[in-house]
Amino acid sequence: MNIEAKKAALRMLVHGIYIVAAGKGEDAIANGVTWLTQASFEPPLIMAAIRTDGRLHDAILHHGAFSVNLVAAGQQEMVKTFFKPAETRGNTINGYEFEPGPVTGSPLFVDVPAWFEVQLRHSFHSGDHTVFVAEVVEAGVRDAKARPLALHDTPWQYGG
Amino acid sequence: MNIEAKKAALRMLVHGIYIVAAGKGEDAIANGVTWLTQASFEPPLIMAAIRTDGRLHDAILHHGAFSVNLVAAGQQEMVKTFFKPAETRGNTINGYEFEPGPVTGSPLFVDVPAWFEVQLRHSFHSGDHTVFVAEVVEAGVRDAKARPLALHDTPWQYGG
Repeated sequence: MNIEAKKAALRMLVHGIYIVAAGKGEDAIANGVTWLTQASFEPPLIMAAIRTDGRLHDAILHHGAFSVNLVAAGQQEMVKTFFKPAETRGNTINGYEFEPGPVTGSPLFVDVPAWFEVQLRHSFHSGDHTVFVAEVVEAGVRDAKARPLALHDTPWQYGG
Repeated sequence: MNIEAKKAALRMLVHGIYIVAAGKGEDAIANGVTWLTQASFEPPLIMAAIRTDGRLHDAILHHGAFSVNLVAAGQQEMVKTFFKPAETRGNTINGYEFEPGPVTGSPLFVDVPAWFEVQLRHSFHSGDHTVFVAEVVEAGVRDAKARPLALHDTPWQYGG
């Protein structure tokens, strides 16, 4: 295989950036995630590939649920803090306030334009990430006009 | 569940648009696909959710391999033709020339800036799409400077 072409072609895939969160109270955990898309209309499913070496991965497996917090184009500084190990204090992670989701209790950040909660339906582990397929069970929109942050709007790369 | 919020939040996810192709010769088939991202660095995996009601879905299962053709921002008209049932004639699909991929034989369009071939590793069927997890086995880049087409650059929506 042409390794350089493999890296370059994979980096041309278009990705968003989301804050995926799981757990409750002092055990709440959140990380930035880019490999996530919808996976079915009915039932409404999403798929996300999550690094196997972090606490978020284990929290998702333990709780069988997580939240996806969509971030707006202006929230790059917020997202940046979630690429490091998360620090949970009271009802904040990395200093950002969250509240428990109404269905799963997964953390919902109060400052993001939209969110959804999902329940795990399937997981497939191969390589350095696990693919989780999960069903959307509740959602909320606080700012329908927000422009979502895309990875190519930032100086960061995650792929290749 | 708040159905309107579910639809609006899912439509805020950031998606690319790709032409996914499978099969060989006169049986080659290709469709536009938006729900596709990387899923692992090592081995290099991608995940794609493909509608269960089309010929592409069955061709992927039959051949155990497919190609992902990345399209540039200026290739909206090309992609548009792949949202309808594909017409294969000789070495063209919908009038666009392809050649067989070096490893899997899956169709590679000669006009796109980059492509990769994948071999199927796992599938999960639930709902109106099947999630395919597949390993990148070969790749090529013809125009490293191309800006990839994103769904939000187009008038189309696929999600909600």
